Amino acid sequence: MSNLNNKKIILNEEDIPKRWYNIQADLPRPLEPAYNSRTGKIATKEDLCQIFPEAIVKQELSKERWIDIPEEIIYAYKIWRPSPLVRATNLEKFLDTPARIYFKNEGVSPSGSHKSNSAIAQAYYNMKEGTKRIATETGAGQWGSALAMACKMFGIECVVYMVKVSFQQKPYRKSLMQVYGANVYASPSMQTQAGRKILEKDPNCCGSLGVAISEAIEDVITHDKAKYALGSVLNHVAMHQTIIGLEAKKQMEIAGEYPDIVIACLGGGSNFSGIAFPFIMDKINGTHKNVRAIAVEPSACPKLSKGVYAYDYGDLSGFTPAFKMYTLGHTFMPSEIHAGGLRYHGASPLVSSIVKEKLAESVVVKQKDVFKAAVTFARCEGILPAPESAHAIKVAIDEALKAKEEGKSKAILFNLSGHGHFDLSAYEQYLEGKIQDCNYSEEDVQKALKDLPKVNI
Amino acid sequence: MSNLNNKKIILNEEDIPKRWYNIQADLPRPLEPAYNSRTGKIATKEDLCQIFPEAIVKQELSKERWIDIPEEIIYAYKIWRPSPLVRATNLEKFLDTPARIYFKNEGVSPSGSHKSNSAIAQAYYNMKEGTKRIATETGAGQWGSALAMACKMFGIECVVYMVKVSFQQKPYRKSLMQVYGANVYASPSMQTQAGRKILEKDPNCCGSLGVAISEAIEDVITHDKAKYALGSVLNHVAMHQTIIGLEAKKQMEIAGEYPDIVIACLGGGSNFSGIAFPFIMDKINGTHKNVRAIAVEPSACPKLSKGVYAYDYGDLSGFTPAFKMYTLGHTFMPSEIHAGGLRYHGASPLVSSIVKEKLAESVVVKQKDVFKAAVTFARCEGILPAPESAHAIKVAIDEALKAKEEGKSKAILFNLSGHGHFDLSAYEQYLEGKIQDCNYSEEDVQKALKDLPKVNI
Repeated sequence: MSNLNNKKIILNEEDIPKRWYNIQADLPRPLEPAYNSRTGKIATKEDLCQIFPEAIVKQELSKERWIDIPEEIIYAYKIWRPSPLVRATNLEKFLDTPARIYFKNEGVSPSGSHKSNSAIAQAYYNMKEGTKRIATETGAGQWGSALAMACKMFGIECVVYMVKVSFQQKPYRKSLMQVYGANVYASPSMQTQAGRKILEKDPNCCGSLGVAISEAIEDVITHDKAKYALGSVLNHVAMHQTIIGLEAKKQMEIAGEYPDIVIACLGGGSNFSGIAFPFIMDKINGTHKNVRAIAVEPSACPKLSKGVYAYDYGDLSGFTPAFKMYTLGHTFMPSEIHAGGLRYHGASPLVSSIVKEKLAESVVVKQKDVFKAAVTFARCEGILPAPESAHAIKVAIDEALKAKEEGKSKAILFNLSGHGHFDLSAYEQYLEGKIQDCNYSEEDVQKALKDLPKVNI
Repeated sequence: MSNLNNKKIILNEEDIPKRWYNIQADLPRPLEPAYNSRTGKIATKEDLCQIFPEAIVKQELSKERWIDIPEEIIYAYKIWRPSPLVRATNLEKFLDTPARIYFKNEGVSPSGSHKSNSAIAQAYYNMKEGTKRIATETGAGQWGSALAMACKMFGIECVVYMVKVSFQQKPYRKSLMQVYGANVYASPSMQTQAGRKILEKDPNCCGSLGVAISEAIEDVITHDKAKYALGSVLNHVAMHQTIIGLEAKKQMEIAGEYPDIVIACLGGGSNFSGIAFPFIMDKINGTHKNVRAIAVEPSACPKLSKGVYAYDYGDLSGFTPAFKMYTLGHTFMPSEIHAGGLRYHGASPLVSSIVKEKLAESVVVKQKDVFKAAVTFARCEGILPAPESAHAIKVAIDEALKAKEEGKSKAILFNLSGHGHFDLSAYEQYLEGKIQDCNYSEEDVQKALKDLPKVNI
């Protein structure tokens, strides 16, 4: 034991932030508009209101720096928030590093990940506007679980299209959603035209987030008082997640620290936005110019590191508007890595813009290294991380070892976005030496980039 | 939402109790001694020291009211402690009850249950006395996971003999132990003479807890610097768990409450002891004469409610000393209910003594009712309970509805001993209508009671 003092920084419920941080207010350049995929014109508020409640659309387009969190949402957050900030003292000792490693533990939420932060907000605003049914997609199942729980709390029917490979690999995730009362379909499914079309061509198609999004949106369009909810990518989702970083800032301050490096894995971008944006705010406004924000990508799906910055759709079928973002192409199908939550072709427009402006950087890591880091972390700190979160752990360890080499005492903060209780079959495969590295194929990406929408031309 | 104020009572790390409460100091009548099953004589300190470290044996036999918790153990507890006390406001609203329902959430520990409270203490004392290897048995796997994690933290090799049928049916629990670095053997195994003997006769033998205990004890005897660890039943384990109730008392006080009723499920007794003993102390010393403590038993294994108070062995094979306790007979084999942690034939001697003295009561509940209560709770409060813990939820709901009928405003406290993330296949079965009630057979109990050891005569 390196010391016998505080291990965690614990806040009280009164310390839960009362406002979300909207980084749109502080971008060096405003986001480029989204394009309606059907009309070819700039997506309007009215376009977005077809699938989202008005309050959410307002947040999506808002440039106000701070948005008040309704009391009812704060009360629902109190089921698990504030989440602890933990000093990884045992890991530090194991690495023999002068770095101080902190992690924010979002795995304590009932659904098991940070996704509940936005799910509760979205379910609340939908309830206020009379939505009776919410359809969504889920990859690894973390977003689906979070939305299922949130919908149950606010009395809304929940329909989840779950990427088939995850549906099969993670039956426990599916059952959890069902315990929360959701209807869960393996995607591609026979429930939608989009799903049926794909299954006709390839009955064994194991799905992707892009396909599942197409199915969910079709579900919304074909049902009364139905709305869509997205667990990542969009501006409002990123904003809801900033509660993580805002809490972490308070906690770091209590610890007498400001992070030199903030690290999070990157799927669609919600987890990275959540922990990093409140610190990037300080980088932009000059109070902490040198803070580094690192988005960690799997080698199977490295959009920030290897993609293009272009207009692209959010889903495989091109149902969604086209957004300016880093993308590998919406028709790119990443390998079946265990971190299902990171198998998304694009990065949120906000994160993309921030990386483009060099306010954040990206790093690519390999699957075997990720699991090695995860097991090391579990053995030191007791907590079993989700494979997604373990991407951040891998880079936190790398940075701590670099600090050791350089003899520098650094404060490293990473977001433990979720626990790995539903990922133990992947751990088993790792322990048995059966986990392979999965690198993206340059050829597949080049092929997918040919499908970018015309808006780019 | 019934109110928008506090949902949880959160303590700081400084508030972690510094001493365990040893109810042996306050029993109206001292515990009757244990008998060595080989010698037929009263089990001595020396007998116990063959398989347990001396510090643990001292605690087992101590009559001091308060035992200091070493700083290193408190530091290790800080990974997750203090655990939150949560007001189940959404459940109250759903039940429309005037009762105030509180629960202590022990599911936030990294191993997923209260078992870590004793695992860490036992691993620490073993480390201090130079133990290099700890062997144990596990059925459902909660104790095995907790001990595996604790051993890794204190640098001790951990060997778990896991009943083969569970090893095969609960691969996630097995993998979690392996992630923590434990060697997990399906029992009967080829590691021990006892195991090899059984496998020679029946290569397909699917094991039992009795066989696994035999293997663990043989492992201890045949290895250098090896000791044994038990996750329930014994006095020191019950005492380690009192940290739950001591924290809960502080938290209830902050909430301006003292519970009218304290509820926990009962397997071997560690979880019930943990939450209830600090309140039963007040009942004994007269400061809160009317507090009710309720131990909840499954109808498949109701030792307190339907057993006899007699000397009996702790295991199927009669390896352990004989203890005076409520028992259904050590050869009684309960049905395979999903709450594997409650499938134990006896109740801890301390809990048994307290029930005998009418300082606590017991209630029997049925499996389908338990899962119904679990799903209701998950849908209201978001948290997925372990099937074991759901036994307490069922009775908390019953008491809250009784309070409603009687128009009485009561404070109800129960212990949520663990989460149900590894029990989702059981939930799936429940949702599909495949869960059956399992009642104990009076005939089987009468048969088993014939095998009670001679000490009773």
